[in-house]
Amino acid sequence: METPVDYIRKPVVGIIMGSKSDVEIMKEAALILKHFNIPYEITIVSAHRTPLRMVGYAQIAHGKGLKVIIAGAGGAAHLPGMVAAISPLPVIGVPIKSSNSIDGWDSILSILQMPNGVPVATVALNAAKNAGLLAVQMLAIQDTDLLDKLQEYREQVQQEVENDIKRINETKF
Amino acid sequence: METPVDYIRKPVVGIIMGSKSDVEIMKEAALILKHFNIPYEITIVSAHRTPLRMVGYAQIAHGKGLKVIIAGAGGAAHLPGMVAAISPLPVIGVPIKSSNSIDGWDSILSILQMPNGVPVATVALNAAKNAGLLAVQMLAIQDTDLLDKLQEYREQVQQEVENDIKRINETKF
Amino acid sequence: METPVDYIRKPVVGIIMGSKSDVEIMKEAALILKHFNIPYEITIVSAHRTPLRMVGYAQIAHGKGLKVIIAGAGGAAHLPGMVAAISPLPVIGVPIKSSNSIDGWDSILSILQMPNGVPVATVALNAAKNAGLLAVQMLAIQDTDLLDKLQEYREQVQQEVENDIKRINETKF
Amino acid sequence: METPVDYIRKPVVGIIMGSKSDVEIMKEAALILKHFNIPYEITIVSAHRTPLRMVGYAQIAHGKGLKVIIAGAGGAAHLPGMVAAISPLPVIGVPIKSSNSIDGWDSILSILQMPNGVPVATVALNAAKNAGLLAVQMLAIQDTDLLDKLQEYREQVQQEVENDIKRINETKF
Amino acid sequence: METPVDYIRKPVVGIIMGSKSDVEIMKEAALILKHFNIPYEITIVSAHRTPLRMVGYAQIAHGKGLKVIIAGAGGAAHLPGMVAAISPLPVIGVPIKSSNSIDGWDSILSILQMPNGVPVATVALNAAKNAGLLAVQMLAIQDTDLLDKLQEYREQVQQEVENDIKRINETKF
Amino acid sequence: METPVDYIRKPVVGIIMGSKSDVEIMKEAALILKHFNIPYEITIVSAHRTPLRMVGYAQIAHGKGLKVIIAGAGGAAHLPGMVAAISPLPVIGVPIKSSNSIDGWDSILSILQMPNGVPVATVALNAAKNAGLLAVQMLAIQDTDLLDKLQEYREQVQQEVENDIKRINETKF
Amino acid sequence: METPVDYIRKPVVGIIMGSKSDVEIMKEAALILKHFNIPYEITIVSAHRTPLRMVGYAQIAHGKGLKVIIAGAGGAAHLPGMVAAISPLPVIGVPIKSSNSIDGWDSILSILQMPNGVPVATVALNAAKNAGLLAVQMLAIQDTDLLDKLQEYREQVQQEVENDIKRINETKF
Amino acid sequence: METPVDYIRKPVVGIIMGSKSDVEIMKEAALILKHFNIPYEITIVSAHRTPLRMVGYAQIAHGKGLKVIIAGAGGAAHLPGMVAAISPLPVIGVPIKSSNSIDGWDSILSILQMPNGVPVATVALNAAKNAGLLAVQMLAIQDTDLLDKLQEYREQVQQEVENDIKRINETKF
Repeated sequence: METPVDYIRKPVVGIIMGSKSDVEIMKEAALILKHFNIPYEITIVSAHRTPLRMVGYAQIAHGKGLKVIIAGAGGAAHLPGMVAAISPLPVIGVPIKSSNSIDGWDSILSILQMPNGVPVATVALNAAKNAGLLAVQMLAIQDTDLLDKLQEYREQVQQEVENDIKRINETKF
Repeated sequence: METPVDYIRKPVVGIIMGSKSDVEIMKEAALILKHFNIPYEITIVSAHRTPLRMVGYAQIAHGKGLKVIIAGAGGAAHLPGMVAAISPLPVIGVPIKSSNSIDGWDSILSILQMPNGVPVATVALNAAKNAGLLAVQMLAIQDTDLLDKLQEYREQVQQEVENDIKRINETKF
Repeated sequence: METPVDYIRKPVVGIIMGSKSDVEIMKEAALILKHFNIPYEITIVSAHRTPLRMVGYAQIAHGKGLKVIIAGAGGAAHLPGMVAAISPLPVIGVPIKSSNSIDGWDSILSILQMPNGVPVATVALNAAKNAGLLAVQMLAIQDTDLLDKLQEYREQVQQEVENDIKRINETKF
Repeated sequence: METPVDYIRKPVVGIIMGSKSDVEIMKEAALILKHFNIPYEITIVSAHRTPLRMVGYAQIAHGKGLKVIIAGAGGAAHLPGMVAAISPLPVIGVPIKSSNSIDGWDSILSILQMPNGVPVATVALNAAKNAGLLAVQMLAIQDTDLLDKLQEYREQVQQEVENDIKRINETKF
Repeated sequence: METPVDYIRKPVVGIIMGSKSDVEIMKEAALILKHFNIPYEITIVSAHRTPLRMVGYAQIAHGKGLKVIIAGAGGAAHLPGMVAAISPLPVIGVPIKSSNSIDGWDSILSILQMPNGVPVATVALNAAKNAGLLAVQMLAIQDTDLLDKLQEYREQVQQEVENDIKRINETKF
Repeated sequence: METPVDYIRKPVVGIIMGSKSDVEIMKEAALILKHFNIPYEITIVSAHRTPLRMVGYAQIAHGKGLKVIIAGAGGAAHLPGMVAAISPLPVIGVPIKSSNSIDGWDSILSILQMPNGVPVATVALNAAKNAGLLAVQMLAIQDTDLLDKLQEYREQVQQEVENDIKRINETKF
Repeated sequence: METPVDYIRKPVVGIIMGSKSDVEIMKEAALILKHFNIPYEITIVSAHRTPLRMVGYAQIAHGKGLKVIIAGAGGAAHLPGMVAAISPLPVIGVPIKSSNSIDGWDSILSILQMPNGVPVATVALNAAKNAGLLAVQMLAIQDTDLLDKLQEYREQVQQEVENDIKRINETKF
Repeated sequence: METPVDYIRKPVVGIIMGSKSDVEIMKEAALILKHFNIPYEITIVSAHRTPLRMVGYAQIAHGKGLKVIIAGAGGAAHLPGMVAAISPLPVIGVPIKSSNSIDGWDSILSILQMPNGVPVATVALNAAKNAGLLAVQMLAIQDTDLLDKLQEYREQVQQEVENDIKRINETKF
């Protein structure tokens, strides 16, 4: 079992994406993890252009201390499913509406429709922010402090809605 | 913090579904949890027919010791997303191709396309088995014994493929 | 039973939406109600970010005198269906093609495909104007003056078409 | 204004459908109205095979005392929209997955996607039961007894869920 | 039977559309008819905003000498099908991708999926030019001069392709 | 110009289909033509398996006296469009939901979405009967007797609806 | 370079599939290769259940003498694309409509929509027979005998159509 | 059999497209062939506007020394399938999202869903680059030098990913 000190130093979430063009979307996951003070690593792992790098990444992920993997990809998006096939860690898949994509349907179905035995926790199209939050929720399963922070975060979100409500109440139509 | 004894007695995964007709699908999640010796509860919570029961279920879920919620529903499937909106626990959504469904598209999109701030970990259409496995993976984040069992399970699955391979190799076309 | 004076003072239609970004679309409903001199209230009620506010809104809606609820939402749009599950009032759902949406299919199916027992009167994508008109039609069921006004409104619409016809008849191709 | 006696005798809801093959679906609306003791008429009005009968039906509907029209049709389903274009009454559209239909998509889009100015209150595919309930909700806007009955109906539905819950709680997996 | 003189004076093709915003698309049909020297009329006939005008137009169309009707509409596009239900003339339907439309799917399915007994000759999305050509082909069934002109037109189109071929053959990549 | 005697002897409508498995659908077109006493020929012309036969068929179609071609095909359905590219006659396309088809979407889009310059008059999925009626309408453009027969046919169809109406009026729910 | 004798002994086409349930579809490819006397091997290689076996298979495929790989899979079908990412051989992908599939859309998009750099030659849904023929065409690029056999095969197919034509010509409707 | 000299002089890949507007997409295939020093020809062959030119092109393609045909088209894209029906050469189809297209679905299904007996090797929407690579792979079946070049090309692609990885590793979020 890791000591708290290790926990601080080593990344516990791996954020990977199929192409550098996915960074704009995937950095939302990083920002959420940063907000919750969770160490993460972020890199490019292309299932199709660097398949052996992908296999290697997935094989050693849990051994090097990662607890959750967030994988984003567009088009025929094989990265999340292939990493889930190799690593025993929970894999969160982010379908990305890339320029090659058919309105995002290809990414969604390629990531979501995994066969029995190999789940990918799929979030909405381009929803890297939700992928980050889901990773936090998974880590909070045994970490009540983190759970408390999640509740606070939700209250902040709710407060923002309250502000929007005030503004709309003052609007004349 | 819970003692190991509590852990054995109290369910850590809640499996809920919108209608009794979903039991045939959702019991696959229960069987996986049983296989991994993880205590679970299974019941019907209808977002549309028993909305206040749903709110209550989601509100007390983490307080009573649940760590993960698996929610299955068909058609305009609001159960997973609404429970995710109320509970801080990770929620795994199982889109179900019910008789009312338009080839499952309605269930998939209603569960998957959650707005930023409220993720649902969506699995494939009818893939309650994968929902169960994903719950096990989440619980294994801090439980190395469970992680080992997951690896064993995968090896069994792989062994079954090996058997299929032998059979096909002996087939004449 | 309400006196006419109460009727003037208190809103009879509640217009709600999931996010402030929906205001541009949903104000069309307000403008129609204003045109027909029907008192309304308009606010933000997020099923996912403020679930308990949503439950509260739906629970007291008919008690405080609302007769119809118009609810607009995008993506995995649970607001109309959840309000319909709690309130006995007729709920009109407006699917909104938000930036998160997959061409609007997710909003449409999440709102339309409600299970038996809990109807939502769904209108076209982004058609808040039609939601307003449908609310007027519902209120006109027992209000012949309002029915007359609806007929006048239709004649005006028809007159606009007549003007368009004149213009096209004078166009040379 | 009608006396209560007239009310009992004359239908207030008109249920129409495009073809005799739609009866199996549309009778669900009739059964709901019967349950709530609301007088209705049910007949076939084909937009495509009897267009003038359709125009006539829509023109006199409100004059003869109807308050709501429920119209079901499959394929290129023009009946609900055309009746809504002619009658000032609220029209509830039921998309039907007929044998000619492409998985119901044609019926849904033909009924739902009405232009601004002419709403149709669309319910889910084949959801004639919900069309009936929506008609009851519209009539209950000014009829508190009917509203009470609706609440009772919901409690019965909820009670059925409770029974399902008991049964599933006793199931061994 | 008409004399040649009548034929020249009176329009033989009626081009109608649901809204003035459709003119930009539908004028392509007019330009083709003009090219082939076929007298036509063009106007707005809205199935939903001017339903009785539509019925009237369809009822007298063949009596006043029209031989073919071209009808364009977007969204829940009922105009072509309803005119085809009333008039015995062949009706060519042009699905229009209007601003309200869901990528054109609603217009296509509303026009194409007519029930047995009432055909609409549907052309591609926004393909008013093809609607014009199809009308010419129908009129050329008994008019060999027109058939000859159609063949010439095709040869011109082919010649344009030849020019494009020359240009691409000279391109360096 | 043909004499009436030639007209009786020679087929004026050519019904072609891509495969023998399409006969069950396409014979509906033949039955309609038989009903209206219009001579037709029916045969198999496969765009993909007999491409040169297809070219030949399309090249001589109008020369041998055909006035209209009805072409049915499933999957990637190229027959109607290719015949329309070669023959100057109006071509009616019947998308067929074959066993290879993806719910008919492939057939519909392959036939409907023809480029500008080469129209195909597309009817609904499997709607060979409507293809037959559309051919009759095209031939009736200059044949008032045939137009009268079409009107009679419609009255018969309407009479059948009247019978259905009587039956439903006597039904108890 | 291989001697003719080696060529006879060693398989030149590898047929792989994700699951034993795909055999019924994929054996069609084997039967075509057998017909053309092309040595092949057929086995199960699951991208998700045996990922390392898949990597190994793809890595040594061209070294052991395979010239073409045919890969069939259903649902989130990653096998063809992943093998294409590792092996330099041309990979033919067969989307399979498995029981888990959403009408085959998931398999098609997962196989077809590969990013630039890694092509998969995708054939129609379930079209393993065409995958076999495409492999033969690829091998015939430098083998004129095989090309001649392909032409003969086509003539046989054409002859079967001729027989169907005779039969339909004798049918009375 | 060709001598090496012939091989250098005569094109071995024919790149054809339905319209000059497709050049921007299709030139990507040409650039790949140029990169691999494979002689090619590129021209416009419209299935619908120049059908006989298409037949001629396909009939003589293999006779004049072409080994592979790459055909791109949009909308109801018949060019790849029709050329595949006439020529015994392998045909690679490139679905193009033209301005007429419905999000590319029409092009994809028209090219992909070929019936048994006539395969088209379909690549992703607009993926002319992949079509070029697939042609190279087919030619490399018996040309080990070309196979080596393909492997080098892949290593270059992989190297580019490595550079992207370095850049993302230095990015601060």
